Amino acid sequence: MTEPASHAAPSERTRVRRIPTNAHYDTATLHAIIDDAYLCHIAFADDRGSHCIPTACWREGNHLYIHGSNGSRMLKRLTEGETCVTITHLDGLVMARSAFNHSMNYRSAMVYGRFEVVEGEDERRRTMETFMEKLAPGRQADIRPGSDKEYAATTIMRIALDEAACKVRAGGPEDDEEDMSWPVWAGVLPFERVQMKPITDPACTHAAPAYVVGWQKW
Amino acid sequence: MTEPASHAAPSERTRVRRIPTNAHYDTATLHAIIDDAYLCHIAFADDRGSHCIPTACWREGNHLYIHGSNGSRMLKRLTEGETCVTITHLDGLVMARSAFNHSMNYRSAMVYGRFEVVEGEDERRRTMETFMEKLAPGRQADIRPGSDKEYAATTIMRIALDEAACKVRAGGPEDDEEDMSWPVWAGVLPFERVQMKPITDPACTHAAPAYVVGWQKW
Repeated sequence: MTEPASHAAPSERTRVRRIPTNAHYDTATLHAIIDDAYLCHIAFADDRGSHCIPTACWREGNHLYIHGSNGSRMLKRLTEGETCVTITHLDGLVMARSAFNHSMNYRSAMVYGRFEVVEGEDERRRTMETFMEKLAPGRQADIRPGSDKEYAATTIMRIALDEAACKVRAGGPEDDEEDMSWPVWAGVLPFERVQMKPITDPACTHAAPAYVVGWQKW
Repeated sequence: MTEPASHAAPSERTRVRRIPTNAHYDTATLHAIIDDAYLCHIAFADDRGSHCIPTACWREGNHLYIHGSNGSRMLKRLTEGETCVTITHLDGLVMARSAFNHSMNYRSAMVYGRFEVVEGEDERRRTMETFMEKLAPGRQADIRPGSDKEYAATTIMRIALDEAACKVRAGGPEDDEEDMSWPVWAGVLPFERVQMKPITDPACTHAAPAYVVGWQKW
């Protein structure tokens, strides 16, 4: 299947081969999948083999950011070579008439490239505040800000979103024509990540701010 | 911190270094994290670099199973070298009094090793039925079973759970003593993966079975 030029993969290794009709190479899809995530999985290799590490992430413009302790083995390795960052949201189980056509609904994004260390104290503080704003809008103004010592112990890194591909499956089962009359229920069993009732720290006597009061969606 | 011998890491590369008190090396924790997952992320390397691929998974005894098309590049690569399989569940955002002590609650499992191809038609059919039983208990008896041709196009692989480590963070914020009086709400903003209302295929007129009727937890 030939893809329209406006939806071409940015590189050979990001070209989706399995079910290419589910591939998306546009910025809007990529940003939406990243912005809906709180963590990503990062693949990298060293002399002990391949590793797949989960870590918190956020996006600013055309970059995905991560952070961690200066002592982190992963952060050291990430500046030394290429990596692959993947985010996956599971949206449902797809129940087809035939065993073979069962599937899952999901949204995934893969980003290839090399991380760079974010430098400059102003820039480092600013981007960590962007992360906090994603977690809890407005909270940064109320908390005890990071000290110089805490920032000195923290490494912040980012990877450009230039070489990326998304894959999305949505909708109901796609059975073969000859299976459509098989006498079984068919459809989707959906999942959602739901925000549950906040749990106040027992030692806390302060009022819950708006982002806590409005958190619960259950 | 010295770990008790019964909770020692099975290898050097699975020994958790960052916050080792959150590490778990016991089988019960590992199985629970895997059994609560429908997909994993797999890291492997080839001449194009490292890759991090999401794929459906299930567990039987001491193995994690995956499957896919015979043509899958990933499945071919997985028999050629070591890999790392990671599963992560995000359980909540941890709101501390200080910026630095913010965290996330999560359960993650990492498995190192090499995948092997599952051989034998009886064994292959049996394990795919185990997967279906996980997705929708009892459904296998009602669907159109896989044909010889469909099975011939499918590769099933498994990896032993011998070299694995789990990391779990749960509970509230852990602020430094001097931050405890900071005037801000502190606690956890929890997430849960919730089973939403089933979506019946428009072409389906068959009654919903028990696992569909009982699916919705919202």
